Amino acid sequence: MSDNQRRRLTPEDRRAQLIALGVLFLADRPLDELTMEELSERAGVSRALVFHYFGSRQGLHRAVVAVARDSLLVASEPRPELPALERLRDTLLRIVMFVREHRGTFFSLVRGVASGDSEVRAVVDESRVENTRRLTEVFVELGEPDGPRLRVALRSWVAFAEEVLVELAVEGDEPPAEVVAFLEASLRGVVEATRR
Amino acid sequence: MSDNQRRRLTPEDRRAQLIALGVLFLADRPLDELTMEELSERAGVSRALVFHYFGSRQGLHRAVVAVARDSLLVASEPRPELPALERLRDTLLRIVMFVREHRGTFFSLVRGVASGDSEVRAVVDESRVENTRRLTEVFVELGEPDGPRLRVALRSWVAFAEEVLVELAVEGDEPPAEVVAFLEASLRGVVEATRR
Repeated sequence: MSDNQRRRLTPEDRRAQLIALGVLFLADRPLDELTMEELSERAGVSRALVFHYFGSRQGLHRAVVAVARDSLLVASEPRPELPALERLRDTLLRIVMFVREHRGTFFSLVRGVASGDSEVRAVVDESRVENTRRLTEVFVELGEPDGPRLRVALRSWVAFAEEVLVELAVEGDEPPAEVVAFLEASLRGVVEATRR
Repeated sequence: MSDNQRRRLTPEDRRAQLIALGVLFLADRPLDELTMEELSERAGVSRALVFHYFGSRQGLHRAVVAVARDSLLVASEPRPELPALERLRDTLLRIVMFVREHRGTFFSLVRGVASGDSEVRAVVDESRVENTRRLTEVFVELGEPDGPRLRVALRSWVAFAEEVLVELAVEGDEPPAEVVAFLEASLRGVVEATRR
């Protein structure tokens, strides 16, 4: 790409392009290997420009992880027109499909929680909060009484589901419908456990 | 302590003392704040001595996390004389009691998985492997067919249980018997989900 073409990008587009390259990086390498140097090489821009947009490696990591996280959340956005149980199944299926199509990215995201940087962890934790909120909505609609025990069960089940997805959808090759059925059954089992 | 008294410690005892101070440190502060300087100050020894025993901050972290992890595994060692279900309940109860008594240490251990250092994470992951092994033993004794699905369910449930313990036993104050009953019920629910 010539300097001339490069100049056509607005600052917003340039930033978005750098983040997209960062998200692509996560597809086959872990977050902690994503340095400003690495990204500037991949983007064919100066290290100073990368620094200009993100301020620090930590700032870069936070931006990349936030976009990767949002792409999963958007891809699995519940369809409000569906009744609770169908909405849950549809959401789970779209999560499984996303994970299948973007194995590396999902793996980096889940293992990105294992980042030494607490701010990067916080970005990933936000998706757990959102997923817990979506699940709570489903179960309250299904007549489950809302309360701290249900919240703990659902939030902890999100951690369970991440492990299952890594094993069955990232590393394994089970049919998506099978993975969804297992996730749903385990979720019901965990919610039933709050009732005893 | 005078230099004279200090010299009485054998190298093994000195190393053990430094590790014990490191484990105590985890009771109220996160692993990534445990530096060689910090430990040398707490132990009243030179930084060079700490360096001599552990080689690096990473080496120190691995040693401290391994001892903290083992103390939990030993405290919850299954009693072989008990039948499977009682053995499970007894183990869960001892884990909950351990977490109650050592809230900070457990929290640091679970969040220590969130260490940027993959070797430190591997040390913590070993306890997940051991807990999965113990659980598999229980369910196989109870007649559950062993297989990859059961292993995935149990390994993922360990991640679930860690979240539950952080919320109910570290941050909350539920009676231990309640926490154990919930853990057992959720575990059965997850195992039943593998059968459908």
